[in-house]
Amino acid sequence: MRVLGIDPGIAITGFGFIDKQGHKLTPVQYGAITTEAHTPQEQRLIQVYESACALMDRYQPDAVAVEKLFFNRNVTTAFAVGQARGVIILAAAQRGLPVAEYTPLQVKQAVVGYGNAEKRQVQEMVKMFLKLSAIPKPDDVADALAVAICHAHSAVLVQKINEVKRS
Amino acid sequence: MRVLGIDPGIAITGFGFIDKQGHKLTPVQYGAITTEAHTPQEQRLIQVYESACALMDRYQPDAVAVEKLFFNRNVTTAFAVGQARGVIILAAAQRGLPVAEYTPLQVKQAVVGYGNAEKRQVQEMVKMFLKLSAIPKPDDVADALAVAICHAHSAVLVQKINEVKRS
Repeated sequence: MRVLGIDPGIAITGFGFIDKQGHKLTPVQYGAITTEAHTPQEQRLIQVYESACALMDRYQPDAVAVEKLFFNRNVTTAFAVGQARGVIILAAAQRGLPVAEYTPLQVKQAVVGYGNAEKRQVQEMVKMFLKLSAIPKPDDVADALAVAICHAHSAVLVQKINEVKRS
Repeated sequence: MRVLGIDPGIAITGFGFIDKQGHKLTPVQYGAITTEAHTPQEQRLIQVYESACALMDRYQPDAVAVEKLFFNRNVTTAFAVGQARGVIILAAAQRGLPVAEYTPLQVKQAVVGYGNAEKRQVQEMVKMFLKLSAIPKPDDVADALAVAICHAHSAVLVQKINEVKRS
């Protein structure tokens, strides 16, 4: 199964594709979609949308996992991030891809094992799980990989539960 | 000039097309894009996006005006509304349409004449400006027409300023 993890934003959208085979996770491609600050927001939204479409078409994920956004950010930021998130979810839905959402708490629990883990600990675990030589930069890329790992782990869990139910 | 006013939302998106000839405003078409509550959000976003695309292609506006969202709503609502807003702005941008944003204060000032007008007063003025027999329902439709009128008035103002500058 190939999972695309996304950390959406209007300036920087982190993305990470990982492959899950059994319990093994392999990074496929990761990076950031960036837009220039002085570009009109509608142009930035087109850029985010078209980049997301191109990435999905190129790397053909089976599922998309998006971080549910922080609830302590301010409302103005929430609108801007929500808009970027909207066009990315649209791109996924137009391709018939299931979209899963995880809170930062769920991501931390899945990646580190407890919900009040530090950002740095999450990043170290991302590096370890994917056998990377360094923590991916900027943070948005590491966050995107973390949510992809979270989804891969959750999928393993769902599979285990189904196996138990069947046995 | 034909203006499309939009009041975005994931459950109800109000829209209103109006024509401006000189100082005369004429309603062309108005209504609401609605999505079902129990539909997955990605499907709802597709529905909002595709409906917005179809309306723009059918009624060919020259400009799109969107209400800048309320800053006193909660952050969770802001994300959801932001997502709907994102796919509508994307639809406009993909058609090369300019997107203008107005705060509720600006809309009230443009439609009623003062910023602390009641919702009902805005709706009555919308009805009067467009010579409608009744206030359009739901509120989202009246709000969409109000932001379209706001844009039309602002465009008249910009034109007047340019005329003064030229004379």
